[in-house]
Amino acid sequence: MSNLGLAQARTIITKAMEKGRNSAFKPLTVAVLDDGGHLIALEREDGASFMRPQIAMGKAYGAVALGVGSRWLNENAQSRPHFVQALNGLSDGNIVPVPGGVLIRNPEDGTVMGAVGITGDTSENDELCAVAGIEAAGLSADVG
Amino acid sequence: MSNLGLAQARTIITKAMEKGRNSAFKPLTVAVLDDGGHLIALEREDGASFMRPQIAMGKAYGAVALGVGSRWLNENAQSRPHFVQALNGLSDGNIVPVPGGVLIRNPEDGTVMGAVGITGDTSENDELCAVAGIEAAGLSADVG
Amino acid sequence: MSNLGLAQARTIITKAMEKGRNSAFKPLTVAVLDDGGHLIALEREDGASFMRPQIAMGKAYGAVALGVGSRWLNENAQSRPHFVQALNGLSDGNIVPVPGGVLIRNPEDGTVMGAVGITGDTSENDELCAVAGIEAAGLSADVG
Amino acid sequence: MSNLGLAQARTIITKAMEKGRNSAFKPLTVAVLDDGGHLIALEREDGASFMRPQIAMGKAYGAVALGVGSRWLNENAQSRPHFVQALNGLSDGNIVPVPGGVLIRNPEDGTVMGAVGITGDTSENDELCAVAGIEAAGLSADVG
Repeated sequence: MSNLGLAQARTIITKAMEKGRNSAFKPLTVAVLDDGGHLIALEREDGASFMRPQIAMGKAYGAVALGVGSRWLNENAQSRPHFVQALNGLSDGNIVPVPGGVLIRNPEDGTVMGAVGITGDTSENDELCAVAGIEAAGLSADVG
Repeated sequence: MSNLGLAQARTIITKAMEKGRNSAFKPLTVAVLDDGGHLIALEREDGASFMRPQIAMGKAYGAVALGVGSRWLNENAQSRPHFVQALNGLSDGNIVPVPGGVLIRNPEDGTVMGAVGITGDTSENDELCAVAGIEAAGLSADVG
Repeated sequence: MSNLGLAQARTIITKAMEKGRNSAFKPLTVAVLDDGGHLIALEREDGASFMRPQIAMGKAYGAVALGVGSRWLNENAQSRPHFVQALNGLSDGNIVPVPGGVLIRNPEDGTVMGAVGITGDTSENDELCAVAGIEAAGLSADVG
Repeated sequence: MSNLGLAQARTIITKAMEKGRNSAFKPLTVAVLDDGGHLIALEREDGASFMRPQIAMGKAYGAVALGVGSRWLNENAQSRPHFVQALNGLSDGNIVPVPGGVLIRNPEDGTVMGAVGITGDTSENDELCAVAGIEAAGLSADVG
């Protein structure tokens, strides 16, 4: 189970969006990246603005690029802004350091399989949906 | 009326500039973008400096990219600077997060049809002109 | 039916991939963009290499940016290479001018609703799957 | 009359589009730049695809940046492709070297006042509309 597959990515997206609808959150965009930071699947709900895919990917990308949930990046952006700015430079601006980028870990050995990024509601609610999706797929969520 | 057309964009620009002239504001530049962030029409008044078109487009782009008037981005740039910096990175520096980027909403169902961005006078006065132009076209303005 | 929604995008992806599986094509990546060139949904089949999402998006982006299927861009890249190189420059390298980027048109009035981009097998087979997906969703395909 | 003003730019756009409508050309996008290569006014007709503003600006930009109509750039792209590629690099990809970017010259002393760029129909027809607009404003057109 070392590689995340499309079937698992679909489950994560479906269940994260279900959580959003049941909680009456704003329209969500959900991205699932593999352990190389590359997109496996993405869906944007009707009514979500057009930059949401990039924001969702940017949250997940920062998480898997650093090996830590994007909540950690959010804290570092406040305590060490120069470090997070440097990461942004290294990544050509592709990191979004706010909560909602959650690592997907293998529940057996803890290895990183990829990351989920969600945007649309508050960062905290986005993160809740990411965790719900990952756990519904039988995997472990790491928020940072 | 789901798509903003050139005729509506022209009305918005003409009326926004009329508001600026009647208020003795400095020379304005007015950009109208569609709901995908792409330019429909732009005019720069004589005497406006040459980077004004990019600033006007950057205000409108930030609004429609995030689905919220640029006044909201201005507030976030102060409360969560790392988030707005990340948006700038994602957009290759094409977002200008100060007031004066105003969403154009369909008055019937509230859907986003595009955005107006204005620069030239104070951000507050720029925003006033954007609202005047949008309302003169029979559409709804959302400043964020 | 002026705006393409997520439900339609899902149908297009599912049916395009079904066509690929039934035809024993290589693993496909399918991207669906709206009429502003922004991602609605994307899926990458297991075994597809990691740059495939960008290629799929680049085929669809070129189509909808120019208002013509990417087969037209492929022909222009041969007859007027300097024009297609210029389009690449304008788009920061985000256009992939080979077949497989297919416009989605409203079957009633012909307006462009978005585009599908597929990569994985030959460009011709990629295009066949895009057409199959679009038609299965009750929409019109325009290959250029 | 050394500087091109907004009133003249509006006349050029209106008359160029009138020529396009009377000739049953496809939807046009018309950009007017000043002698520094900066946008004064732009309009995109309904039905024109979203990258058309960048293409129109790129034709006009190449003309005024080199001080010659873009027809000359089109010829050089064929005879000396490495030179036009170098120009594209210098300009960060902002030059479109095909006909339709026409210099606006002061009819009295021949100095360059700016340029018009048009895209939508064939490059030759785009150029015809640019010339019509410039001449209707009482200025001299230089196609290269």
